[in-house]
Amino acid sequence: MPSIKSELRAGAYYDSAVLMQLQRGLLGLPGVLDSGVVMGTPANQELLAQCGLLVAELRPAGPNDLLIVVKAESDALALAALSQVDALLSRRSSAVSPAFQPRSLETAVQQLPEAQWVLISVPGRFAAGVAREALTLNRHVFLYSDNVSLLDEIELKKAAQEKGLLVMGPDCGTAIINGIGLGFANRVRRGAVGLVGASGTGLQAITSRIHALGAGISQAIGTGGRDLQAEVGAITARQALAALARDPETRVIVLLSKPPAPSVATQLLAAAQALGKPVIVNFIGYPPPARKLGSLHFATSLSEAAELAVEQLSAEGTPSWPAEPPVTGYLRGLFSGGTLAYEAMLGLQAVLSPIYSNAPIRESQKLPDPLKSQAHTIVDLGDDVFMVGRLHPMIDNDLRLRRLRQEAADREVGLILLDVVLGEGAHPDPASELAPAIAEVKTTRPLEVVVLVIGTDADPQNLERQTQRLQEAGAIVFRTATEATEYVARRMSSPPVEPGVPVDLETLHKPLAAVNVGLESFYTSLLGQGAGAVHVDWRPPAGGNEKLAGILARMKKK
Amino acid sequence: MPSIKSELRAGAYYDSAVLMQLQRGLLGLPGVLDSGVVMGTPANQELLAQCGLLVAELRPAGPNDLLIVVKAESDALALAALSQVDALLSRRSSAVSPAFQPRSLETAVQQLPEAQWVLISVPGRFAAGVAREALTLNRHVFLYSDNVSLLDEIELKKAAQEKGLLVMGPDCGTAIINGIGLGFANRVRRGAVGLVGASGTGLQAITSRIHALGAGISQAIGTGGRDLQAEVGAITARQALAALARDPETRVIVLLSKPPAPSVATQLLAAAQALGKPVIVNFIGYPPPARKLGSLHFATSLSEAAELAVEQLSAEGTPSWPAEPPVTGYLRGLFSGGTLAYEAMLGLQAVLSPIYSNAPIRESQKLPDPLKSQAHTIVDLGDDVFMVGRLHPMIDNDLRLRRLRQEAADREVGLILLDVVLGEGAHPDPASELAPAIAEVKTTRPLEVVVLVIGTDADPQNLERQTQRLQEAGAIVFRTATEATEYVARRMSSPPVEPGVPVDLETLHKPLAAVNVGLESFYTSLLGQGAGAVHVDWRPPAGGNEKLAGILARMKKK
Repeated sequence: MPSIKSELRAGAYYDSAVLMQLQRGLLGLPGVLDSGVVMGTPANQELLAQCGLLVAELRPAGPNDLLIVVKAESDALALAALSQVDALLSRRSSAVSPAFQPRSLETAVQQLPEAQWVLISVPGRFAAGVAREALTLNRHVFLYSDNVSLLDEIELKKAAQEKGLLVMGPDCGTAIINGIGLGFANRVRRGAVGLVGASGTGLQAITSRIHALGAGISQAIGTGGRDLQAEVGAITARQALAALARDPETRVIVLLSKPPAPSVATQLLAAAQALGKPVIVNFIGYPPPARKLGSLHFATSLSEAAELAVEQLSAEGTPSWPAEPPVTGYLRGLFSGGTLAYEAMLGLQAVLSPIYSNAPIRESQKLPDPLKSQAHTIVDLGDDVFMVGRLHPMIDNDLRLRRLRQEAADREVGLILLDVVLGEGAHPDPASELAPAIAEVKTTRPLEVVVLVIGTDADPQNLERQTQRLQEAGAIVFRTATEATEYVARRMSSPPVEPGVPVDLETLHKPLAAVNVGLESFYTSLLGQGAGAVHVDWRPPAGGNEKLAGILARMKKK
Repeated sequence: MPSIKSELRAGAYYDSAVLMQLQRGLLGLPGVLDSGVVMGTPANQELLAQCGLLVAELRPAGPNDLLIVVKAESDALALAALSQVDALLSRRSSAVSPAFQPRSLETAVQQLPEAQWVLISVPGRFAAGVAREALTLNRHVFLYSDNVSLLDEIELKKAAQEKGLLVMGPDCGTAIINGIGLGFANRVRRGAVGLVGASGTGLQAITSRIHALGAGISQAIGTGGRDLQAEVGAITARQALAALARDPETRVIVLLSKPPAPSVATQLLAAAQALGKPVIVNFIGYPPPARKLGSLHFATSLSEAAELAVEQLSAEGTPSWPAEPPVTGYLRGLFSGGTLAYEAMLGLQAVLSPIYSNAPIRESQKLPDPLKSQAHTIVDLGDDVFMVGRLHPMIDNDLRLRRLRQEAADREVGLILLDVVLGEGAHPDPASELAPAIAEVKTTRPLEVVVLVIGTDADPQNLERQTQRLQEAGAIVFRTATEATEYVARRMSSPPVEPGVPVDLETLHKPLAAVNVGLESFYTSLLGQGAGAVHVDWRPPAGGNEKLAGILARMKKK
């Protein structure tokens, strides 16, 4: 009958790679049927239980305890296996002799002064400390470790930004810097597509696909999954975008993330729009405002992002928006068509913030009083609240004319957007009422009026004449919501300022050299790719005893 | 000094068109500077106030009271204008002589028995009653009226469905049936694109654009804005899709809505997928699962929907999915890449329901325990909860191998989806561990295993050999998440049953004739388009007195 024996080692630090090697070592011993070597978190205990390996004496274990379980053909064989644990731990295979390894980051940097990058994959609770040290030594950080606090992330990124350094991560799985993969990365051709990604496997999927399509990568900069949350404000993504914009080797940029915080998305898209290079945006699960908005191209999948990037490489130069003086002041959209209002919201929320509507996309955009605009506002005048005992605004222009004058009288307003829907059932000649009002408000002060006309050449109102009258009144007329939205976005979005000290492009173009702290496999991967590298024989401060480590840190400061 | 005089008429019914005419009539009288004629809702009172027309004596008015305000050059002129109100109301211009107008729907249908459609635009509180009567007379309903309750909508649509009738609306602005526009509609060429839309101006924008692109419309069926809410369950949209699928004139279908309820979206997309015709989907503001999923094409804007529809008209026949026996049972996705898991969720949630994940798109999809799958499940095994003291699943396959066997042992599981991410930093030969496990679980029972391999031909693991080993073990291998997702969607989604009695296609192809109840302009529009039409000289029951109307209705039933 199989026998299960276990051992609990309280509170000591073990590298994950060591634990995997121990588990495999145990499995290779005589009579061993299964083995489990895990830290004692609730999830890990449940996993052991699912494999029939959780014995009663391990239940009190905590997340910092190491659990070792062996299932063998007999009690004797199980005990024999357990007795080998220390021997297996010491036999730990290593590619590098510890004799040549520095024990601290500082020493490592002295050994390899050209190393501009520090790769950190130590357990989360120690990672911020190592990253802080790397920044003090003026090195860029690739922070693979997860379980780093949000506050640490913000502090690290702000400190880095002030020095023109990048902190990729925490929880950054992938980057390709000057042809060398950091962390998990596919081997891909060098080329002219630069990537910024809050997603490791996303970067891997896109770079692999670009390679398969025959193109290549200039730089792929990871940001960590939380960079686009409101609290972090996309510090790394904005630094990376700005750097790729200045990078002469990068002709097309891909920006990739799981859905960002809405306010961050707006900022980031406005920044991306101002880069002067085509940017493929894949905010996975974020409803794209359009297929294309100026120089932004929205992809709906990772493979499509790759395809669009490769397409843009051979596209005629980016139609970068002409340098007109932008409209200052707010947008006010006065719509008769609910869906047209909604589509305009969807497009303009990508670049204008804050924006409100009685047909909001998100609850936070809800206009408190549909009769009063605030900041950028888009009103659907066909909304139920306006419709009691009143004809639809496609038939009766009265409400819209009054609101148009009201908005024009607001000195904070810079652009008014209207729709005019022609066809059966609608007003027989809307331009006869709207055009004089537009001409009138435009005489008072500089104000752009943009009109989206929906109609056909067969419509009873005469599309051509309606358009002409509106244009004669000074309106700029479009025939699709996409074109109208794109025009308004172009006129109203102002290029954001590059945050902090610009990242030095030279460090991205020098042959990559790095210090590795943590997973040894990342070090051997660097060497295999021909990069300069040194591996720190890192141990947690005070052997992982956090109380003692705290005391040591305080002593060091004094 | 200008003078403002007002009048309040309590509780009487007035047609909105009549109110607009009265307001214009007053404005045309000598010395009148402005006028307001509105029902006394809070919003309307505030609008009067904004125009400086709200006088104190009107403040107590309620939503069923008519407010008439005149601003004139003097008291005398204001009072003179007000004295004309009754004369103006009786001078109401009308295109039809009331002498020839039936007073009831029943009489109207006797007058024009070929009328298969009833257009209803009476005030919301009376609209459901008229619609009920139309269904009793076996007529399709175009319900323009808004402010109809959700319960009434559900009741009407269920009743219609049992008779093979359509209820387009409430709040349905637009339809084009057999070339005739109902409500607000642009004049467009006949053609092979059929539309189903929960959005009036959306249908107008798309049909106008299709016309501008040189193509045309077979039918455009409105559903009303709430049809795709969970409570209504898209009854009209599903009837309409099924009808267009059977319609030989329709070669491409466009399905349009503001974001539908997620459960309804899944049902509707599964239904659309099974139609055997290309379907352009534009769920405005809904993140598209991909650019293309089987025969579904996802558009990000109204104009793009039109462009895709026209493109599909000339595309090589739809690659309709081959008729294989579908996989029965649940999907279990075991991912090492978080973003790959998320992208698979995004695609598969469109056609599989319910689906759970520890990387959910919506909170309701949250897997309560990441260690236990339920229904369709996609697990990101790189999630923090799995990662304490454990190497990433791209390096260490142990966790995945155990979970793979666990899922395979679950008899309810029909398909297992894995990712394998190659490249620097990853396991040197993942197929050597995964392929034998796949082969093993496939021997036990019929089970499909699909593997998404991310990698390049330059990766150290040898992409070709990895793929081959996985295929030899019986896995179906893809190189992009989009292809893998599309395959899984195809194998697992089952065609839904057409609800209720099928709509008779003949009524869509007969020359359109309709009874109009409400806005006279819709009647004149029908006549202008050459349709057969009769206008009911409708008055609210008991002159709009709802208490009395209730008594009358009860008497009628007896």
